[in-house]
Amino acid sequence: MTEHPDLARLQHRLAAFAAARNWQPYHTPKNLASALSVEASELVEIFQWLTPEESARVMDDPGTAHRVTDEVADVLAYLLQFCEALGIDPLTALAAKIDRNEHRFPLPGAGQEQPDA
Amino acid sequence: MTEHPDLARLQHRLAAFAAARNWQPYHTPKNLASALSVEASELVEIFQWLTPEESARVMDDPGTAHRVTDEVADVLAYLLQFCEALGIDPLTALAAKIDRNEHRFPLPGAGQEQPDA
Amino acid sequence: MTEHPDLARLQHRLAAFAAARNWQPYHTPKNLASALSVEASELVEIFQWLTPEESARVMDDPGTAHRVTDEVADVLAYLLQFCEALGIDPLTALAAKIDRNEHRFPLPGAGQEQPDA
Amino acid sequence: MTEHPDLARLQHRLAAFAAARNWQPYHTPKNLASALSVEASELVEIFQWLTPEESARVMDDPGTAHRVTDEVADVLAYLLQFCEALGIDPLTALAAKIDRNEHRFPLPGAGQEQPDA
Repeated sequence: MTEHPDLARLQHRLAAFAAARNWQPYHTPKNLASALSVEASELVEIFQWLTPEESARVMDDPGTAHRVTDEVADVLAYLLQFCEALGIDPLTALAAKIDRNEHRFPLPGAGQEQPDA
Repeated sequence: MTEHPDLARLQHRLAAFAAARNWQPYHTPKNLASALSVEASELVEIFQWLTPEESARVMDDPGTAHRVTDEVADVLAYLLQFCEALGIDPLTALAAKIDRNEHRFPLPGAGQEQPDA
Repeated sequence: MTEHPDLARLQHRLAAFAAARNWQPYHTPKNLASALSVEASELVEIFQWLTPEESARVMDDPGTAHRVTDEVADVLAYLLQFCEALGIDPLTALAAKIDRNEHRFPLPGAGQEQPDA
Repeated sequence: MTEHPDLARLQHRLAAFAAARNWQPYHTPKNLASALSVEASELVEIFQWLTPEESARVMDDPGTAHRVTDEVADVLAYLLQFCEALGIDPLTALAAKIDRNEHRFPLPGAGQEQPDA
């Protein structure tokens, strides 16, 4: 039985993959941040001429669905390698950010919530 | 005792956060992909004038370290919301991509020299 | 009477501006390409949550109009500095590209229906 | 004898090219800003694993030189189409920005200005 893949395990596989190919000299934080943004733009490219409505249906076409999923994987791969290079825990970073955002964007009338909230 | 935050739980918090503020109409896959790329560029901006060596030391300065960590959180937040909107499992996507890359970029002398990846 | 600003003259002003501040060591082609993409993303950020219709009206609000115009200037500034660093003539590059595109995307019924492009 | 191509003439050719192919419905300011950032990222991609020194020599290889020049053309093409869609004069925008920057980043020693300015 295969388990659901785990973030730490994927991060370890990525590090081993790059190390086995001697790619570490290229993997400076600066270069990994660039690569992350390039992959994010490849995701944007899929959507650039679509209407909002068309953009919600990209998974209906198997070829486009594969391309979108593949770009998601590339973005996550570079994000994890960037975090590994700098010792950042992305899940802790995000949990802290959500905490801060709950203070920055409080719900109107929390308790007796506003209908337009 | 606090547990390590879990990806699925963070994805759920992000969805609840956006829903409580009625942000879903803005959160089309097209817009979320754009927002992801904008946040990735904000990460790049921190590094744009640094040498490769300076880029490896960004976490030494607490202010810069906070800024980098914050942008990582933003990138991950939009990636998870994008995946939620389209029903993509980012960890499964990445595991499949690493499998494919192991075939695309085989190790020289594979056999003796297996990466554990 | 002020003349319309000229591309070559603006490129010269940008080079003199950077030289007077000793910024050339930072202005590697790699860094200038990054800076260009960061500025392009700042332009995208203005539009990221807008509908297509709202995006067509951004110049109606003076504050947003100023911000858009300012980001256009930043993108052009880095594009010209990138071209200067590598000896590329952007206008000749674009003229050649339009020529190629006219072959790649021929008009249906070309012959009768020539675009003047 | 061919003249040096002129920005306004190129902008006109681009508009005619898009109009002849009925591409205007896709050319919202939002989409054109996205396309501009995607092309800027394609330029970044060429440089992403290069050292600063290697990045200064990209024009030595004819294939890479062509690729760089082509991406410059794409960036400029979408910048001009974006400006056309919103009635922005990019040269005037840049001239105004350089004027403002000369005030924001004054030269050390201009008049009695601060040496660390």
